[in-house]
Amino acid sequence: MAKQALVMGIDVGGQSTKLGVVDARGNILYQSVISSLQRELSTYVDDLTTAIKDLIKKAENDGEVKGIGIGAPNGNYYKGTIEFAPNLKWAYDENDKPMVIFFAKMIKDIVGIPVAITNDANAAAVGEMTYGIAKGMKDFIMITLGTGVGSGIVIGGNIVYGHDGFAGELGHTIIVRGGRQCNCGRKGCLETYTSATGVARTAREFLAERKDKSLLRSLDPEKITSKDIYDAATKGDKLAIEIFHYTGRIMGEAFANFVAFSAPEAIILFGGLARSKEFLTESILDAMNENLLDVWKGKIRLLYSTLKDSDAAILGASALAWEL
Amino acid sequence: MAKQALVMGIDVGGQSTKLGVVDARGNILYQSVISSLQRELSTYVDDLTTAIKDLIKKAENDGEVKGIGIGAPNGNYYKGTIEFAPNLKWAYDENDKPMVIFFAKMIKDIVGIPVAITNDANAAAVGEMTYGIAKGMKDFIMITLGTGVGSGIVIGGNIVYGHDGFAGELGHTIIVRGGRQCNCGRKGCLETYTSATGVARTAREFLAERKDKSLLRSLDPEKITSKDIYDAATKGDKLAIEIFHYTGRIMGEAFANFVAFSAPEAIILFGGLARSKEFLTESILDAMNENLLDVWKGKIRLLYSTLKDSDAAILGASALAWEL
Repeated sequence: MAKQALVMGIDVGGQSTKLGVVDARGNILYQSVISSLQRELSTYVDDLTTAIKDLIKKAENDGEVKGIGIGAPNGNYYKGTIEFAPNLKWAYDENDKPMVIFFAKMIKDIVGIPVAITNDANAAAVGEMTYGIAKGMKDFIMITLGTGVGSGIVIGGNIVYGHDGFAGELGHTIIVRGGRQCNCGRKGCLETYTSATGVARTAREFLAERKDKSLLRSLDPEKITSKDIYDAATKGDKLAIEIFHYTGRIMGEAFANFVAFSAPEAIILFGGLARSKEFLTESILDAMNENLLDVWKGKIRLLYSTLKDSDAAILGASALAWEL
Repeated sequence: MAKQALVMGIDVGGQSTKLGVVDARGNILYQSVISSLQRELSTYVDDLTTAIKDLIKKAENDGEVKGIGIGAPNGNYYKGTIEFAPNLKWAYDENDKPMVIFFAKMIKDIVGIPVAITNDANAAAVGEMTYGIAKGMKDFIMITLGTGVGSGIVIGGNIVYGHDGFAGELGHTIIVRGGRQCNCGRKGCLETYTSATGVARTAREFLAERKDKSLLRSLDPEKITSKDIYDAATKGDKLAIEIFHYTGRIMGEAFANFVAFSAPEAIILFGGLARSKEFLTESILDAMNENLLDVWKGKIRLLYSTLKDSDAAILGASALAWEL
């Protein structure tokens, strides 16, 4: 009997890199984790390729790993590179200049099987389309709400990579002209309002500008997290609930602009902040529908990822490899 | 000898409908015009199909018209419909309710050759890709600057129609939150700033708010056109030049957001206002590059359509028909 085909998904994060061997139904058969904190690229690549080989060996009796998909910050699908990835120390040379790392080729040359790479949000979109709630959908936009805000845009069943492989940076569309300072150097990016850190920033602003009582007042404002705000909201804290409404409205306004671009069937939310959906959904939909052209009002679905957070990054990356 | 293949392009405008027979090199061999002001759909369709048949007969000795492409307000490529087209009286029933008109099928059934329809801006993008400056380009965004602002988005060599056929309404992305009232019922749409009427509106605002001398002060503010402003600018009128700079900066900011979506090779401008490029280009590029992520700064080309304005609408629509 022919061995079943398997793929490997690798999620390169700022702290750690997760690896998993995945079957065609989206089951993660084996997984492992290594650190991402190595200073030297060569050390990181050694550690990673060792972990890859170990995992392939573990899966030997189950099937053959036919390809590897990698989701990484600023992973470029066309070029197979990682570049401009501020969270990865090994992506910078000894003078702290960003390097252009031909990561896919590097890994392929060492382990001897095909490797594809893309950024984390694109990987999440492919994962959702292959294993999740976007199965069978041809046109949708995946928005990842984490420390930053990323996006994966699917049009006609394909990820939009654009002319240079960097398309889909919707977290860095400017939603408030002259608004909040963003890490990217510009002002008013969606990410500064609707990432986990953006929501915490809203909390600090609200607490400073207003006098209402709130459970959040007992916390050090500089240390407030989106989780604290969620916890307060579930206890009925009005200020916390308003923070989510404000966040949801900004998302809805931004999503309306995205719809005018690609007319998707759905917007799908993923990531830590998406867990606060009970406090976000109504505000997002209200603001989105207020800001949509008549032809789309009430017609664009807002969905939440159905992939387990812990698995989604590996599954998403692995899904890339089926096309190799 | 086999007859050469020809196509027909039809540009449905609010005032008139232009028809042309086009060869594979983009030469318009024959053309004609009919009115678009008929109140009744049946009258308009009669007039149009008569004109189509006449033109096909005229071209008989040159070749065979194998398909018809139509560019029309809110033309929907998937459904072959015209719907919600406020400038077309015959698109509304006797109670002035908008009808959903299966226009492509209607024309095809009468003249007996395949018909495709899309909106005017998508037609312009296809025309530019087939005959114009976008020849060979796979990823670009066409922005049409007329009475309104339209867009045709090309990704991987294909027009983006979206889930429902209505994608690419970039004139109605909101660029200034709570900004100028738009005809679509919302506020702050790109169109309210960068259409010909938007520029005239900027002129009225500038003239009312400021005291500087200007050639424009001799005109009735309510009747100022973008042409008047262009004429003043060419005479060195500072206020007129500033109006274009203001307009260009808004465009550049908007374009930066569009780039974050699809990472195109170029943005291509088309339409009346694009003729003022000498006063627009620098401001557009400055504002675009200020608002782009580092990875795109200085890399996105700003181009102007190379198709003659009078021919472009027919050529654009005709280009659709080559794919039938």
